[in-house]
Amino acid sequence: MFSETVELRGHIIDSLILPKVLDEILTRGAGFKIAEIKVGQNRVDQSYARIEVSASSEETLAEMLLRLRQHGAEVIERADVQLAPAPADGVFPENFYVTTNQQTFVQIAGKEVSVESPMIDSAIAVSADKRSARSVKFYDIHEGDIVVVGQQGIRVEPVQRDTDRTSIFQFNATVSAEMPKTATIREVAREMQRVRQRKGKILVVAGPSLVHTGAGDHLEKLISLGFVQRLFTGNGLAVYDIESALYGTSLGVNLKGGALVEAGHENHMHAINRIRQAGGIQAAVDQKIVTRGIMHACVRQGVDIVLSGSIRDDGPIPGVTTDALEAQRIMRDKLRDLTLVLMMGSMLHSLAVANMVPPSVKIVCVDIDPRAVARLTSRQTFRAVGLVTDIEPFLRELTQQLEHPDATSSGVSAS
Amino acid sequence: MFSETVELRGHIIDSLILPKVLDEILTRGAGFKIAEIKVGQNRVDQSYARIEVSASSEETLAEMLLRLRQHGAEVIERADVQLAPAPADGVFPENFYVTTNQQTFVQIAGKEVSVESPMIDSAIAVSADKRSARSVKFYDIHEGDIVVVGQQGIRVEPVQRDTDRTSIFQFNATVSAEMPKTATIREVAREMQRVRQRKGKILVVAGPSLVHTGAGDHLEKLISLGFVQRLFTGNGLAVYDIESALYGTSLGVNLKGGALVEAGHENHMHAINRIRQAGGIQAAVDQKIVTRGIMHACVRQGVDIVLSGSIRDDGPIPGVTTDALEAQRIMRDKLRDLTLVLMMGSMLHSLAVANMVPPSVKIVCVDIDPRAVARLTSRQTFRAVGLVTDIEPFLRELTQQLEHPDATSSGVSAS
Amino acid sequence: MFSETVELRGHIIDSLILPKVLDEILTRGAGFKIAEIKVGQNRVDQSYARIEVSASSEETLAEMLLRLRQHGAEVIERADVQLAPAPADGVFPENFYVTTNQQTFVQIAGKEVSVESPMIDSAIAVSADKRSARSVKFYDIHEGDIVVVGQQGIRVEPVQRDTDRTSIFQFNATVSAEMPKTATIREVAREMQRVRQRKGKILVVAGPSLVHTGAGDHLEKLISLGFVQRLFTGNGLAVYDIESALYGTSLGVNLKGGALVEAGHENHMHAINRIRQAGGIQAAVDQKIVTRGIMHACVRQGVDIVLSGSIRDDGPIPGVTTDALEAQRIMRDKLRDLTLVLMMGSMLHSLAVANMVPPSVKIVCVDIDPRAVARLTSRQTFRAVGLVTDIEPFLRELTQQLEHPDATSSGVSAS
Amino acid sequence: MFSETVELRGHIIDSLILPKVLDEILTRGAGFKIAEIKVGQNRVDQSYARIEVSASSEETLAEMLLRLRQHGAEVIERADVQLAPAPADGVFPENFYVTTNQQTFVQIAGKEVSVESPMIDSAIAVSADKRSARSVKFYDIHEGDIVVVGQQGIRVEPVQRDTDRTSIFQFNATVSAEMPKTATIREVAREMQRVRQRKGKILVVAGPSLVHTGAGDHLEKLISLGFVQRLFTGNGLAVYDIESALYGTSLGVNLKGGALVEAGHENHMHAINRIRQAGGIQAAVDQKIVTRGIMHACVRQGVDIVLSGSIRDDGPIPGVTTDALEAQRIMRDKLRDLTLVLMMGSMLHSLAVANMVPPSVKIVCVDIDPRAVARLTSRQTFRAVGLVTDIEPFLRELTQQLEHPDATSSGVSAS
Repeated sequence: MFSETVELRGHIIDSLILPKVLDEILTRGAGFKIAEIKVGQNRVDQSYARIEVSASSEETLAEMLLRLRQHGAEVIERADVQLAPAPADGVFPENFYVTTNQQTFVQIAGKEVSVESPMIDSAIAVSADKRSARSVKFYDIHEGDIVVVGQQGIRVEPVQRDTDRTSIFQFNATVSAEMPKTATIREVAREMQRVRQRKGKILVVAGPSLVHTGAGDHLEKLISLGFVQRLFTGNGLAVYDIESALYGTSLGVNLKGGALVEAGHENHMHAINRIRQAGGIQAAVDQKIVTRGIMHACVRQGVDIVLSGSIRDDGPIPGVTTDALEAQRIMRDKLRDLTLVLMMGSMLHSLAVANMVPPSVKIVCVDIDPRAVARLTSRQTFRAVGLVTDIEPFLRELTQQLEHPDATSSGVSAS
Repeated sequence: MFSETVELRGHIIDSLILPKVLDEILTRGAGFKIAEIKVGQNRVDQSYARIEVSASSEETLAEMLLRLRQHGAEVIERADVQLAPAPADGVFPENFYVTTNQQTFVQIAGKEVSVESPMIDSAIAVSADKRSARSVKFYDIHEGDIVVVGQQGIRVEPVQRDTDRTSIFQFNATVSAEMPKTATIREVAREMQRVRQRKGKILVVAGPSLVHTGAGDHLEKLISLGFVQRLFTGNGLAVYDIESALYGTSLGVNLKGGALVEAGHENHMHAINRIRQAGGIQAAVDQKIVTRGIMHACVRQGVDIVLSGSIRDDGPIPGVTTDALEAQRIMRDKLRDLTLVLMMGSMLHSLAVANMVPPSVKIVCVDIDPRAVARLTSRQTFRAVGLVTDIEPFLRELTQQLEHPDATSSGVSAS
Repeated sequence: MFSETVELRGHIIDSLILPKVLDEILTRGAGFKIAEIKVGQNRVDQSYARIEVSASSEETLAEMLLRLRQHGAEVIERADVQLAPAPADGVFPENFYVTTNQQTFVQIAGKEVSVESPMIDSAIAVSADKRSARSVKFYDIHEGDIVVVGQQGIRVEPVQRDTDRTSIFQFNATVSAEMPKTATIREVAREMQRVRQRKGKILVVAGPSLVHTGAGDHLEKLISLGFVQRLFTGNGLAVYDIESALYGTSLGVNLKGGALVEAGHENHMHAINRIRQAGGIQAAVDQKIVTRGIMHACVRQGVDIVLSGSIRDDGPIPGVTTDALEAQRIMRDKLRDLTLVLMMGSMLHSLAVANMVPPSVKIVCVDIDPRAVARLTSRQTFRAVGLVTDIEPFLRELTQQLEHPDATSSGVSAS
Repeated sequence: MFSETVELRGHIIDSLILPKVLDEILTRGAGFKIAEIKVGQNRVDQSYARIEVSASSEETLAEMLLRLRQHGAEVIERADVQLAPAPADGVFPENFYVTTNQQTFVQIAGKEVSVESPMIDSAIAVSADKRSARSVKFYDIHEGDIVVVGQQGIRVEPVQRDTDRTSIFQFNATVSAEMPKTATIREVAREMQRVRQRKGKILVVAGPSLVHTGAGDHLEKLISLGFVQRLFTGNGLAVYDIESALYGTSLGVNLKGGALVEAGHENHMHAINRIRQAGGIQAAVDQKIVTRGIMHACVRQGVDIVLSGSIRDDGPIPGVTTDALEAQRIMRDKLRDLTLVLMMGSMLHSLAVANMVPPSVKIVCVDIDPRAVARLTSRQTFRAVGLVTDIEPFLRELTQQLEHPDATSSGVSAS
């Protein structure tokens, strides 16, 4: 039998860390002995556990320690991390450590160093003076850069559950299609107001269906009210928004009149052509070609727009970053200082953001497809709220709440 | 080769009848020759076609004529229908004719008789004096009753497309999750106002998710405004509505406060007990136990409620018809004089209604699941509008439109 | 402040009971102090915790104790249960205790009595001699019957997690559409073989889509191999199965030939008529009218069939219980001695079963709609396996595994 | 009133062209008069109609003619197309004609010229000598290139319905989750065999879920059997396939063992690193690092792989085209000579292909999400078959059919 002693500290029972650790051990057919346990007597107290883990092979033990470490367990007799140089540009050394989306620390020369820009599925590069560490993607690495390998000397600090038990962000919870949404939307509105008051930053990630469903007016209003600092989307939303501003249609469907009569699938092509001719969105706004809509509001309010391209784009319009790697880099830079992300109807962009967002950011994810909501919120331990609903009425109600925070939420009961 | 000549009359091109007929023939590997065709020169004109159909076997020809007849084709040299007595109570004679949900005529002694209460998947019983015919279910039939058998002497008149090309009911169309719904909801509201003005009857068919999503207030308002004459639902909606009236929760979820905290799954059981103790819904309203909600509004407004039971019911409360056949009979009686049906979030009750509704009734079907909408609207040729959306915001917007028909639809743009 | 002391015993950390209890307390804004905790040193050891719970009102405290009791907490200084007579037939006394689907014990005259037939959403009736107790539905109760009221003297024993960590039933887990299913199907097959060896009983709950998708052959085979002891379904599956046996179609779709050509929606009506004429399924098999299919196999193998009616039925055929309450009673009787339930493509029947199934039964739930799987497995703590997949290939692979347990699962790799 | 005369030719009734044309006219509130109609007497005969269309404004008339032209109507007194030079690189002239995905002809100097590489949402560029025309995307166009503008002189030839009425590709049909699929899969297999015999080319478009569900083995087999000439996918499928080849897992889920235990989300990162180190997929196969799987089979069989990047990629591995425009160009080139496309579980890549595929190509689209299938097949008039099912069992059955075409489709009934 091979064994090792690990320690757990913090709200390990309340945040489900201890049970998860024991569960991992048992699921792998390994054994444990709790050498010592001190459970916090009151809810603000921290707890402590020392556990001897044993497995039948050294390999199983090593793999298990890797898992336990991701739950915040640390192996006693802590050693320094092991390091190795990158063998080539864009290539990590064998057996490099793959990060989670939790805050991570590495021990170098007996001292713990926090890993900057924690991000899922990255490696950890250590600076030449070994005083700092940061998470890196393949494209960040150059031959000879020093990278953490193996499992030793690494400590993960899981996000602990919010102690404010009135916040909807203490959970990782989803309001399903069959549940009432008004109260949750009101809480999202309150959170956005708090963020604005404290000069925090809100990112909207959205897909083209936002415009198709007629929700463009609401997002335009949200931007004008100052609740959006950044917008990540693709060529599609921009094109349909401009089509709507120029022709009143979205993919040929008239947004105001009867949705059942189609008119003019060419409109979006002519919209693209006009923006290309003008030289871009900013230019089209300056030349008063585009005088309303989401893009117009973004230009007016100085919202930072990131448009990333995809292989299904028509056009695209100028300003779209067609290279996926380049777009990833731009998005990552603009994710560092966020407070809240609102994801609406875009699997592609939302997954890209979920891959790079720091663990501290709060996430609200809205989609009519329950599978999309489940995929996007599943990566977060806490701080993620999902709503399975139609984007248009969601945004309408959210905007009403933000414009008239004192009014009751429902137009019906107000009368 | 076996062949037969059929005739088509009416808006056979505009209503897609001629193409469907030719399609049926070709799909079955049969042949046709168009002996004569007169296409209406203008849109109000009717068209006419005479087609010789031929097939390799008599059986194929007979089956094809059966199909063609459902598209309105009639076989020339029309004969009287064939009749046979029912061999036992609840049993039709061999080879009985199975109806569609189109208006049907049978020729008896050289004269055409219209079939009363046309309904899908029924037989046709002829009165003893052979002057009238009506569609019958298995449970309607007694030994010796005279029933139509075979295919001969039967003429079907498909619903022709509405000539009012501004009506959303001229189509069988669905507004998908990715399309704007505001304009369609406005048209539904207008139609409901027209129906109310003309003293027509509106049926609401709803499931329990209507209450869970917090839309109960909106339906209560709709009833109070006089837009609902009948309500078909089950024990569940009634129980959750009364739970909401008594305790403010629905299946233990607080409808006004945070949806994310559950409280009291027992509430619906205590609600059932109180209604059983009181003796029923009407009694509970009279005794002022229930003073608000959908059921309360129905009692006050004299809305005709049909509660049908199912095997997943708790309780049930008094007034629920637990026998499925008895419930079918009650519903069928209350479907005869309807103008419009609004189906929301109930596959079970909606399919039961779709099975029995006369072809002239307009249908609006709302569900967040696109498959439910597709199944419910697929049986109608025209006059069915589907919306894939969340019920709560749909009903909120519909109710606002009906209360304030002059206001713009969006609370946002109204400000 | 109002406070009370509760105790927890068993695998309270491994089975997540302690964390859930603390979570309930914190979520309700109450406080706790852990007076004593003994964590099992090894995985077979039980743990123990004594916790002082405090709340700001007596009401909150009482409600919280109710919740904690459902997680297995018991209040120290245990008292006898409180009892009250039923005020009328079918009516429980005020404040009756509502059961969960966990094993429950009540203390009467200082002695603990186990509640027979534990079932969710029931009351507890105590025998006249107060020596036994059983869970009762509204229709079971008569005026004067003694019923448990309030929260005191009740102990709940949650299902503890299976200690066999190789079993798929130790979890409440769902294999989503995007995950591999072969290994899980193999485990389900192994479990079914174990059940058959030990003379356990397997119930199949199925809906009509099983026949529509062409999976009827597989279920017929499963029955012939002796893997099904009971079948709960509705009129629909029986009718389409018999339509398939008589005409080779299901709702008019040819099951063997091209699925894209429709033929004969009347077939199911003629099938119903023939069974009504014959006098029922058994009679139709005896008279050699029905010589193949699921119903035929059930009659041959002596499988206990429960057919319950619904308001969307055509017919129905003889043998269908059209009264929902009567059908509930029949199903409940046949659920007592089950080992495993296989639910496929029937929300209605599966929910009815999930409402009444004892906590010890293992559940396998298969549906192509992830929401259906989620609803059906969510009520179980452990022992439920969900698969989001097509029923036809699932049943094909399961049947192959059961026929040829040694063969590799995939026809491709076998070659 | 403004009016114009249009002509329709071909199987205009059988292919639903005449009804669609009349429908367009009526829906827009315009009028028509059928000046002449000759309906083909037999199924091989073509039909002809001459229709006078009238509208209240010149604008409405012009727009209507545009629509009618897309249904194949041609305006009598045909004129030459109007041409204008592109004002800048990547910008079309004002009012450029936007193509559909139908075969299109333009009249230049009185002669009709066929537009090469017909593709939806493009412009038409005319060669300098005005003898040829081709469809162009924005990025194809340079300042001064001659482009078709307006609506005049353009004729569209809609795909006419296949006269082989036994082919599943005569329809645009979808086999829903509730329908039998075996017969359709058999027909797809037969079509693939015909294509292989005639040296046609089959393209597979697939997403990563194909590997996650354990269907990689089947696709590998399909490639080895010579049924795949091209594979369009992204970084994800390639990475998970190589992870599976190297470690036996897919996104950390063990494909052969129990799907319910997760192991090693790092595996896909280490897989990426090894391919980057090796220098690419071909190199990794040459160096015997990758010795099995889809990518390995592609390299061995000389299948043309197009890997296009997206913003959610990890890595990517060498060979992925990260620029979306560049990837579009590569895909377009490889779509010209296809016979059949099999789309499985990839919305992004499938939509990109659907945007560029020539109208003659047959499409089979498989997804467990009915909305994905609906979106992908909706653009095709005919020749598209959708199946709403799980990819793994679909591919298993298809591969079995292709390996053993004489065997019955079901392993169960074969025994």
